[in-house]
Amino acid sequence: MSEEHAKIAVIGLGNAGLPLAAVIADSGITVTGVDINEERCRRINRGDNPIPEEAGLEELIKAHGGKRLVATPRFEDARRCQTFIVIVPVFVDSGNNPDFSIMKEALFSLGRILKKGDLVVLETTFPPGTTEGVAQNWLIESSGLAGIDFFLAYSPERIMTGYSISRLREFPKVIGGRDEESGMLAYQVYSKFICNLHLVSSARVAEMIKVMEGCYRDVNIALANELFKICRKLGVDFFEARENANHQFCQIHLPSTGVGGHCIPVYPWFLIKEMEKREHFGNCSLLRASREINDEMICYWAERIIQECLKINKPLSSIKICIKGITFRAGVKEFYHSRNLGLARLLMEKGLDTYVYDPLLSESDVRAKGLRYIDPKMADLLFDPFRLTFECPEK
Amino acid sequence: MSEEHAKIAVIGLGNAGLPLAAVIADSGITVTGVDINEERCRRINRGDNPIPEEAGLEELIKAHGGKRLVATPRFEDARRCQTFIVIVPVFVDSGNNPDFSIMKEALFSLGRILKKGDLVVLETTFPPGTTEGVAQNWLIESSGLAGIDFFLAYSPERIMTGYSISRLREFPKVIGGRDEESGMLAYQVYSKFICNLHLVSSARVAEMIKVMEGCYRDVNIALANELFKICRKLGVDFFEARENANHQFCQIHLPSTGVGGHCIPVYPWFLIKEMEKREHFGNCSLLRASREINDEMICYWAERIIQECLKINKPLSSIKICIKGITFRAGVKEFYHSRNLGLARLLMEKGLDTYVYDPLLSESDVRAKGLRYIDPKMADLLFDPFRLTFECPEK
Repeated sequence: MSEEHAKIAVIGLGNAGLPLAAVIADSGITVTGVDINEERCRRINRGDNPIPEEAGLEELIKAHGGKRLVATPRFEDARRCQTFIVIVPVFVDSGNNPDFSIMKEALFSLGRILKKGDLVVLETTFPPGTTEGVAQNWLIESSGLAGIDFFLAYSPERIMTGYSISRLREFPKVIGGRDEESGMLAYQVYSKFICNLHLVSSARVAEMIKVMEGCYRDVNIALANELFKICRKLGVDFFEARENANHQFCQIHLPSTGVGGHCIPVYPWFLIKEMEKREHFGNCSLLRASREINDEMICYWAERIIQECLKINKPLSSIKICIKGITFRAGVKEFYHSRNLGLARLLMEKGLDTYVYDPLLSESDVRAKGLRYIDPKMADLLFDPFRLTFECPEK
Repeated sequence: MSEEHAKIAVIGLGNAGLPLAAVIADSGITVTGVDINEERCRRINRGDNPIPEEAGLEELIKAHGGKRLVATPRFEDARRCQTFIVIVPVFVDSGNNPDFSIMKEALFSLGRILKKGDLVVLETTFPPGTTEGVAQNWLIESSGLAGIDFFLAYSPERIMTGYSISRLREFPKVIGGRDEESGMLAYQVYSKFICNLHLVSSARVAEMIKVMEGCYRDVNIALANELFKICRKLGVDFFEARENANHQFCQIHLPSTGVGGHCIPVYPWFLIKEMEKREHFGNCSLLRASREINDEMICYWAERIIQECLKINKPLSSIKICIKGITFRAGVKEFYHSRNLGLARLLMEKGLDTYVYDPLLSESDVRAKGLRYIDPKMADLLFDPFRLTFECPEK
């Protein structure tokens, strides 16, 4: 590899991009971080970590922010880099089709500074074929280069908010190129800051690997939810049964209010919608069933909450029900596809006297979501969506 | 526990019962084995192992057959025992409802020799609630005793043909009673010959544990099959993707021609049919989808075989297609719900020139299944259902 490929830009300094940029800087490489959020860039450059829940990130930002890691809202400031890592979100729209708008914008901006011989590595999770397909086309269109003029590869981020630094340092990471040369080059560049790196035969395979992991999780959480509901009908304690069922060949997951966040509930749709386009509906029946089970768990919990209300000697309409937590995951202040937020709204729709308490949120944060805040002690019935427990506070 | 509970009878000396009886005998306890198959009893009593594929069983049968382990076709010969372990098969009928006929017959025969204070432990996998429900009722009806007159517990077998002895010696085994006293007594008795024993709160929980394990396997094999089909459509090598997707939090299984045998394809139906009876259809959508995917894999493979035929320069009707293996699992001469046998029959139904070769079967074994035998070298196209590979022998 030419030495210049070691001048790296990371496009997108969000929850996935910033830890990666910090780890690259910590390995001794100069990194230009590009993010449209100017305030976030300023914070990073003065060594101030914008993601406090990310263990180990604070030290890295303090050490490298504004020095080896310089954040900027302007793509032009990364013009002299020769490796560009793109890690901006792809969501699904209301019809569950991938929404590439942010990615498209980032790749068009990147294309305008892309030079012959540069390497682009995408890290965002998306449908298999995206790197060599639309992503490459957008780069070609915006740069005026031919596809063979630049190297292109894919390496899915496998971080998890709160564990990103250790994931980057220890967890296996895969990388695959649009072509063999791109794969080799990207592998060499990434080897400088990732220890446990695995080159796979193509970008497409690397894309599929990440989506498959999400599908495994979604299906197994759906299975846990289905078995949990069946156990209750059959008078069996699911948790006791699970503890004794699990061994080296059996890993039954935990039940929940469903699956939220940017990752697991989104990835199965990438395959479902891709198969739909190709008219192979039947090939995704398990992924579809799992999505449905997980998304509908809030209906199950709404019913369970009403059953708990039967035990309270008050008119149903005046029982103050409190959902203790509306983020999608405990301890992370994020709401994307949060089933707990969905549950609170569903109870309101049903006309129940619904309130919210979340240790991560202020009263005005809760109000901004269109919900009512309550001190848990004042509620008649509390439901903890992370522990799946009910409680009636003593008054 | 009273010392007499250590006189143990094992009812059913099949693939699950015989290894258990042998392990009990090997721990120093005298065992009476009851099986309706007289010839099998005679073999066992002369120290001749009837299940050669079961590693380690031969030595045990040689050492204890006819001595500490005496096999008999007569229940009366077990009259002096006080612990009765029942391990006879429960299948599903053509409508996928559990078929208890063999179990019912065994329990009615057992009931006629059952005495006050005896312990009955069931090991057969069946729907949660069976031990304390129909099984207990049949024992009461046939013995004339009241339910409280005898102890009753459940401990699911977790063996796998070929690994039964090591499973019994090392694998965790759970046990649960119809009531607390039964659970405690059964735990004490089993502790004498099972090391890794776990008492759970009820027979019902123990029943559910075993069924849940089967469901986990079935759903995860269905997921592997679904992802395998999707990968092919998307031009991704499933096996490469799987190898790199799997890590401590992701265990994607292997694809297959479906799931056969007495266990995994049967257990999900126990829950599905139980929920149907209770009119909770929706609670089993994932288990249903998985059953459907796995059972329909033979249609997928039939299509793949026809695609392979496209490469052969012969009229389709004269291409000799050979399925290399029709047992449900490689190396085990069993056909219950074998998808490979199903695949051979499906190809015949489609009018293709279908043959079978199976290293475990003679030409006449194959003919007895209504199929035609071929020397693999004589076939134009071979499909190995265990490796999922195609081959065209050179002529």
